[in-house]
Amino acid sequence: MTEIATDLEQQVQKIAAQARAASLVLATTPTAAKNAFLDRLAEMIETSAEQLKVENGKDLEAGDANGLSTALLDRLRLTDKRIADMATGVRQVRDLPDPVGVEIERTEHANGISIRKIRVPIGVVGIIYESRPNVTVDCSVLCLKSGNAAILRGGKEAFHTNTVLSSLIRKALQESSLPEAAVQLIPTTDRRALLTLLKLDEQIDCIIPRGGEGLIRFVAETSTIPVIKHYKGVCAVYLDRRLDPAMADAIVINAKCQRPSVCNAIENLFVHADIAESILPAIGRSLIDRGVELRVDPAAAAILSRHEIECTPVSEEDWSEEYIDLILAVGVVPSLKAAIDAINTFGSAHSDAIVTSDPEAAETFLAGVDSATVYWNASTRFTDGFEFGLGAEIGISTDKLHARGPMGLKELCSYKYVIRGTGQIR
Amino acid sequence: MTEIATDLEQQVQKIAAQARAASLVLATTPTAAKNAFLDRLAEMIETSAEQLKVENGKDLEAGDANGLSTALLDRLRLTDKRIADMATGVRQVRDLPDPVGVEIERTEHANGISIRKIRVPIGVVGIIYESRPNVTVDCSVLCLKSGNAAILRGGKEAFHTNTVLSSLIRKALQESSLPEAAVQLIPTTDRRALLTLLKLDEQIDCIIPRGGEGLIRFVAETSTIPVIKHYKGVCAVYLDRRLDPAMADAIVINAKCQRPSVCNAIENLFVHADIAESILPAIGRSLIDRGVELRVDPAAAAILSRHEIECTPVSEEDWSEEYIDLILAVGVVPSLKAAIDAINTFGSAHSDAIVTSDPEAAETFLAGVDSATVYWNASTRFTDGFEFGLGAEIGISTDKLHARGPMGLKELCSYKYVIRGTGQIR
Repeated sequence: MTEIATDLEQQVQKIAAQARAASLVLATTPTAAKNAFLDRLAEMIETSAEQLKVENGKDLEAGDANGLSTALLDRLRLTDKRIADMATGVRQVRDLPDPVGVEIERTEHANGISIRKIRVPIGVVGIIYESRPNVTVDCSVLCLKSGNAAILRGGKEAFHTNTVLSSLIRKALQESSLPEAAVQLIPTTDRRALLTLLKLDEQIDCIIPRGGEGLIRFVAETSTIPVIKHYKGVCAVYLDRRLDPAMADAIVINAKCQRPSVCNAIENLFVHADIAESILPAIGRSLIDRGVELRVDPAAAAILSRHEIECTPVSEEDWSEEYIDLILAVGVVPSLKAAIDAINTFGSAHSDAIVTSDPEAAETFLAGVDSATVYWNASTRFTDGFEFGLGAEIGISTDKLHARGPMGLKELCSYKYVIRGTGQIR
Repeated sequence: MTEIATDLEQQVQKIAAQARAASLVLATTPTAAKNAFLDRLAEMIETSAEQLKVENGKDLEAGDANGLSTALLDRLRLTDKRIADMATGVRQVRDLPDPVGVEIERTEHANGISIRKIRVPIGVVGIIYESRPNVTVDCSVLCLKSGNAAILRGGKEAFHTNTVLSSLIRKALQESSLPEAAVQLIPTTDRRALLTLLKLDEQIDCIIPRGGEGLIRFVAETSTIPVIKHYKGVCAVYLDRRLDPAMADAIVINAKCQRPSVCNAIENLFVHADIAESILPAIGRSLIDRGVELRVDPAAAAILSRHEIECTPVSEEDWSEEYIDLILAVGVVPSLKAAIDAINTFGSAHSDAIVTSDPEAAETFLAGVDSATVYWNASTRFTDGFEFGLGAEIGISTDKLHARGPMGLKELCSYKYVIRGTGQIR
């Protein structure tokens, strides 16, 4: 038992040390070499479709035997379409501009030294994730393109799939003459290996957990390495006193129903008391027609009941719940300020919108709501790396340090100051 | 015992909740109101000099009784000059541009929405520090100017001084109609209060420990809140094969001797084997003349001994030691690559310099050394917020996430995306 633990620890430490060494090489690897790897990997994914499906089949079989839910099995499954999408994703990252080496700022000191702030890779990034195997490829290529070495620790449900994907990645690295240790999968899902990994703050610069709240919280509490968290999205739309009802209806329906399972879909709707009577019945009916369950406060209940629109009482906990389902909490608020307070109190500071024709109210909302993305007259569904022009994203950070909102290649970078002088001293 | 602990916990939780509420107000407080506070505070510090010295005297007396070293007592002491400097520091921060609300980037989406990335305060910043009472004022005003609420936890040695300083700050906040909870001092140095504070990740967005390595390590390991670390500076100068000997001498002497107690002074000197024979004796003598103790590897020892220059053998641990004293470790390296490897292995990734007349070697060094600041032909002593044009600094980060190197007002900010539309949906 103890021997196994020690072996595991040493294995993980070795992986981290190799990653650190690889990161120093990657930091100065030219764009063309990184792109050649991405090209090769995309090809290999396509030509290995059959092998991928065989290994994935083993995971599906084991998952089925272990009673994984249909939803989880679906996440886990690799189809021809999904394999093709993976390859396409790799080529999209190849086509993104290389963030490394870009000058962010420049200062000329009075004494003649030039101080340039230059974007550089973070170094070694650890990705801790759950069942979706596409994360293995997505995160690897985003880290590689931004010059970072990646250490991947996937979930046990996808172990066979992740293993074959990581061996494809290693082969593509070899064939492109990049360090093999640039991307490494922890070859076990033993929890003790994870515990060791999360303490290696000398080798690993950053941990990004991707998965449910439980996983993220565990990682954040255990790790001595800085963690960039991607918590849940409890997003809201607030309908202000003066607005275009058709626009309000379109935005609420889109934000709730277009894809209820994603983090930028809304869970809460707040309506100003002055317009609740006039606007809630129509919007309530639109939502019900789309199969949305309404959980409402007493004021909203009074209005909806008068119009015979089905609803149930909202509980205190409901306001902070991420349903990721066709459920919406609805409340009537006495003022713009009350709406801002409710969003800052119950929301997860992800994406929140106001619908209003009053520019002053809009600006108060945009400044006062302390969320990563705030919207005036648009759906919260636009919070996304592609929509923001960042290209692919490694996640949507709910942290305020380093990266907030969608994280693309630039957000996978740090910076350094490069100073050139002619002998200056202080 | 348990009752006291519970009371303490509640007190700290209340402070954090008040800070959170204050931070939402500060986020939209205009520059003029923040500057009015800074003006008022600078005045109050000047007019309270006598009271400050009386309270500081209590700390000095207690420190003396408890056997504090002369160096620590000196750090703790407020003199008329230091009080005047504090007020000057506050006015310098007043004169810096307000970082909040500045547009960092803007994207126009094809569908017509505008996506603006805007600088906003981090929110609530906790500062954990040791004996210097000027940190109380410096950190408070940097946080306030950048729109952050600050929670201060100072060391017990400066308790009386910190208490009177924080009451001046509170009074200045009141008189400027800013929330009193914008800056709060934890009114006890009981360690249990600190332990509670470091777990309040719902209210506090960021912890900045300022002090020795032990304090920083404790905070980083205990906190569930993101920590920006300011570890030691183990900096180096590397003398390359081709260089101007006079420049090399001037840079080494300046980097080691001008102020050996600061983190951007060097602890290690590496010399290319090709020039060691010709350059080491003169530089060794310059250093000895300034009272520097040389700890050298066998190759350097052979050269220095032939010239009868005093030196002692360097140990493996010496290379990673921050002496903050007139001691220098000296090694001869066979190549530029070996110098880069040694710096990446033993240094603390703070500030490192190459002296060379070979541009290619310089660029290899600047790209390959993984440090926050890298220099070509200039002294490492320039790593400083004022020198970099950031104005005052809250510290020099040795982390790679969020902020690296000197942290000024901008580095005390996060950002948010502000999206304005005309009804766009996805």
